[in-house]
Amino acid sequence: MATGSSGSKRTPRSRTTPEVFVLRVGHRPGRDPRLTTHLALAARAFGARSMYLHPPDPDLSARIHALAQRWGGTFEVVPVGNWKTVVRTFEGSVVHLTMYGQPLARVLPKIARRRRLLLVVGGAKVPPDLYRLASYNVGVGHQPHSEVAAVAVTLERLLGLPGPGTLPGARQVIVPRARGKRVVRMGRRP
Amino acid sequence: MATGSSGSKRTPRSRTTPEVFVLRVGHRPGRDPRLTTHLALAARAFGARSMYLHPPDPDLSARIHALAQRWGGTFEVVPVGNWKTVVRTFEGSVVHLTMYGQPLARVLPKIARRRRLLLVVGGAKVPPDLYRLASYNVGVGHQPHSEVAAVAVTLERLLGLPGPGTLPGARQVIVPRARGKRVVRMGRRP
Repeated sequence: MATGSSGSKRTPRSRTTPEVFVLRVGHRPGRDPRLTTHLALAARAFGARSMYLHPPDPDLSARIHALAQRWGGTFEVVPVGNWKTVVRTFEGSVVHLTMYGQPLARVLPKIARRRRLLLVVGGAKVPPDLYRLASYNVGVGHQPHSEVAAVAVTLERLLGLPGPGTLPGARQVIVPRARGKRVVRMGRRP
Repeated sequence: MATGSSGSKRTPRSRTTPEVFVLRVGHRPGRDPRLTTHLALAARAFGARSMYLHPPDPDLSARIHALAQRWGGTFEVVPVGNWKTVVRTFEGSVVHLTMYGQPLARVLPKIARRRRLLLVVGGAKVPPDLYRLASYNVGVGHQPHSEVAAVAVTLERLLGLPGPGTLPGARQVIVPRARGKRVVRMGRRP
């Protein structure tokens, strides 16, 4: 059984890994709820600290908050009224993920050494200013794909594959199995 | 400029890489169109040969076909009436991606040596038979996340990061840039 105190174990990649945050620009609450939920879940599962969401979507933030209460950790979806302010005031490098950008393989050695990174993904229409405001415009491949895939692969390349283990405060944890499902509830009192 | 004949360049990972196919089980055409579209796009962008889709969704297959006509390559979304037949008759290893499975880091050395792999992802409700029929049940992390992320990260770990380059038959190709967008149309005749 996992110990419940050490956080998720990871395949080691380097001695120091950056703190990574995600910013989703151009969310459409009526149209994108499931897609942006998947983006938030992937950001959380692959080790981002939190996700800034523009425009805000209180329902989505509440759903992710409820999930993090069950599964542990401190990840949350932070509502953002003005995305440019987040980009401009972020203390670290801003990495805009876009299929038009420079290959991730080329940029990775540079950004992996940074202390703090903000990965920015747009929706269907990306504000042109984003290309100019970003420290790097980076393509995770150069074919149309998905912001969920782009964020997950970038996080995995920066932080390694998340392993099994309990996040702080979790009420439940998965015990990996070759067949079937095993979920252990933590600290239940009679 | 890319040559238009060699296919997408990849970060080399090993001398031989498997041919990878994706099977999406439990798609809900009315509810999941955008999510399954993102799944198909990620599968294509990260090097899968094709995606089997159950139940069939002709609109989605047509949209991906139209996209592949513009961007090149032979990826397609293949409609599937009976997913068990696909799993049972697949000539290769069947890898069911589920957060309940064995850690990807542990299974990767085994599956990377296979000639052909079928990555299977379920929707909200995964048929229990899938756990039994799969060669491997594999967790890409063990937190709730996204089938789009799971497929993209697994493909990236198996095949490497896709680089810039033109896929066979493409009508347009992206030329990576540090700022802004550059798309080149191929072989336009007056």
